[in-house]
Amino acid sequence: METVTSLLDAIAGTGRDARRGGYTRPVYSTAELDLRAWFADAAGRRGLDVDTDRNGIMWAWWGAPQPGALVTGSHLDSVPGGGAFDGPLGVACALAAVDELRARGVRPRRPLAITVFPEEEGSRFGVACLGSRLLTGGIDADRARRLRDAGGTTFAEAARANGLDPEHLGADPEALARIGDFVELHVEQGRGLGEDGPAVAVGGSILGHGRWKLSITGEGNHAGTTLMEDRRDPMVAAAQIIVAARQVAAARKGARATVGRIQPVPGGTNVIASRVDLWVDVRHPEDAVTARLVETIHGKAQKIAAFEGCSVALTEESWSGTVHFDAALQRQLENALPGAPVLATGAGHDAGVLAGHVPSGMLFVRNPTGFSHSPEEFVGPADADAGAAALADALEALL
Amino acid sequence: METVTSLLDAIAGTGRDARRGGYTRPVYSTAELDLRAWFADAAGRRGLDVDTDRNGIMWAWWGAPQPGALVTGSHLDSVPGGGAFDGPLGVACALAAVDELRARGVRPRRPLAITVFPEEEGSRFGVACLGSRLLTGGIDADRARRLRDAGGTTFAEAARANGLDPEHLGADPEALARIGDFVELHVEQGRGLGEDGPAVAVGGSILGHGRWKLSITGEGNHAGTTLMEDRRDPMVAAAQIIVAARQVAAARKGARATVGRIQPVPGGTNVIASRVDLWVDVRHPEDAVTARLVETIHGKAQKIAAFEGCSVALTEESWSGTVHFDAALQRQLENALPGAPVLATGAGHDAGVLAGHVPSGMLFVRNPTGFSHSPEEFVGPADADAGAAALADALEALL
Repeated sequence: METVTSLLDAIAGTGRDARRGGYTRPVYSTAELDLRAWFADAAGRRGLDVDTDRNGIMWAWWGAPQPGALVTGSHLDSVPGGGAFDGPLGVACALAAVDELRARGVRPRRPLAITVFPEEEGSRFGVACLGSRLLTGGIDADRARRLRDAGGTTFAEAARANGLDPEHLGADPEALARIGDFVELHVEQGRGLGEDGPAVAVGGSILGHGRWKLSITGEGNHAGTTLMEDRRDPMVAAAQIIVAARQVAAARKGARATVGRIQPVPGGTNVIASRVDLWVDVRHPEDAVTARLVETIHGKAQKIAAFEGCSVALTEESWSGTVHFDAALQRQLENALPGAPVLATGAGHDAGVLAGHVPSGMLFVRNPTGFSHSPEEFVGPADADAGAAALADALEALL
Repeated sequence: METVTSLLDAIAGTGRDARRGGYTRPVYSTAELDLRAWFADAAGRRGLDVDTDRNGIMWAWWGAPQPGALVTGSHLDSVPGGGAFDGPLGVACALAAVDELRARGVRPRRPLAITVFPEEEGSRFGVACLGSRLLTGGIDADRARRLRDAGGTTFAEAARANGLDPEHLGADPEALARIGDFVELHVEQGRGLGEDGPAVAVGGSILGHGRWKLSITGEGNHAGTTLMEDRRDPMVAAAQIIVAARQVAAARKGARATVGRIQPVPGGTNVIASRVDLWVDVRHPEDAVTARLVETIHGKAQKIAAFEGCSVALTEESWSGTVHFDAALQRQLENALPGAPVLATGAGHDAGVLAGHVPSGMLFVRNPTGFSHSPEEFVGPADADAGAAALADALEALL
């Protein structure tokens, strides 16, 4: 039987990022398409019927598709310079779990499907979990079609180029009804599983999180000919807003605020920017607190921008409230994995989006580095196989 | 006779930037190559012999090339989202001035050449005035060959793709010796020429300026799973450094410090950056002061980075001391243009690089907006023609 590591070895060369380190596998890039082909092949070799639905979600079926199936899976796209496990581990463990269930002679009472969701990271079109949001109607199809990547390509264009009909994107109640229960296995993204304890945890909740874009507009001009006192420099305002966002989050227990992306326009070295766009990612276990944190950051941003002779506009790009996974399903997972701790996660997942519609749960596999969205993210071969075995245990209990 | 405005009208559609506004015409882009073709055609129609030297500088000769010629010209490349006049105005005025000299029946005692310098803005390969620095040996050819654009293309590759032999880039004493005097006409980049006074000024000096890259390295991680207190976020350090650079410049009369370009790595919205690169442009009339300003900014950056658990590395990407134009040539220009004020400029120019090697001078044409490196930069049709007439007067006096 193939180990999870040997499954992942087949894609270890796909989408490597020489400049950033790690992997860059944005949705519908050559790299992500290669990973989809790898998945279709691996599923096909297992006799699973592979299908892509109208939102670009891949389904590999053990048994004929029907409502109420047991579904597991994750995603294959990555952040820029991400690790090898975020997404692919869940897909590889699902394939290995099917092998394991068959080796055990398990005869499913309902069909099992493995799914691959597109654009989970939102690193190309800006909306995380885009595939599951489309499936569940969590994002308006029109808005999704109009999303643009950094090169100006719309999501509708990317969808069409990849064999989808952009007009048929959006809520798919029939596909959603096929999910009786959803279990996503994922690499743990903090140091929640210590080195000496169990390698796998059961998910308890997902921290509420969202992305807000702040556009700060000033006055573009020449870096040499414009006196300091004559400037309305949006970069100087943006810098103070970044510091303010950190202060706001640091002052509130459990809160996180991050600016990982910033884009000055026009972006020349000898040019005072006319506009700076920055994105702030804000998270807190209590949704009302997250909303207040964003309000506070926005208020500070307005004061800072006004002081610098600039203006600021805030746009919410995505928002997901804190998700508590289905209590009954969580109990079933805990029973199937005695001794596994229950962990909350600060990261968003398709399982969190699906949780609003169908019973959903998660399993987390130890990441001894504690790094995530980084090349240093790591899962050892034994832990990866322990993840597949735990997923097999959970699926067997649920099938 | 063609007006300057009608000459520029022919290229008004070339390299327009719909996103930023204005023009984006980086060296050896389709847009800049189209402008070169336009220049070769316009020069050819005037019976000038057009030649490109081994550094990619275009020369259009009235008379046989020989040492000690009178040379005028500017550049055709732009910053991202720049105006229509920065560069092209000097080239178009030179063409119109040749028409005017011929209409006046001027019989040159020495040959006249119009030059177009590549990568004056440094917006693609990071070194401003790259063409004139190569010509004069002001940049090591090996370093120039290794310069990379944002897409990873080296300058050697770009040069080869455009018909140059990368091995032959660099100091060209023979070509340099052909320049007896150099006069560059350029759009004024501040509000140095009031609306009611003369439309043209004579250049007195160029403010010293340089570009320094600051690379701040921290620890990349997940924006959701990493507590605020566990972070070593280089973006937060970068933000404080931007504010510090502004404070350092604002505290010193005549100083300017600008951050117009910043690049987080990997740059994902839900990722704490592992590194942030930013570029600071520093200028002051006294070279020793500029050096001290950079030292002060570097010192503050080190303290800020250390406090945030990050490290910082400073690299000088370019540096040009304050240039006082050739006194004798400047007097000749002033005599040829009675009533024209003498202006210092805060912007770098190829004339400033050449000034270290051959007598060089500049003329500036009124820009009533005072904006530069911005779509709002402007020269009225009458002022543009006044610029060509003034250039013709100056060249006639020098020929």
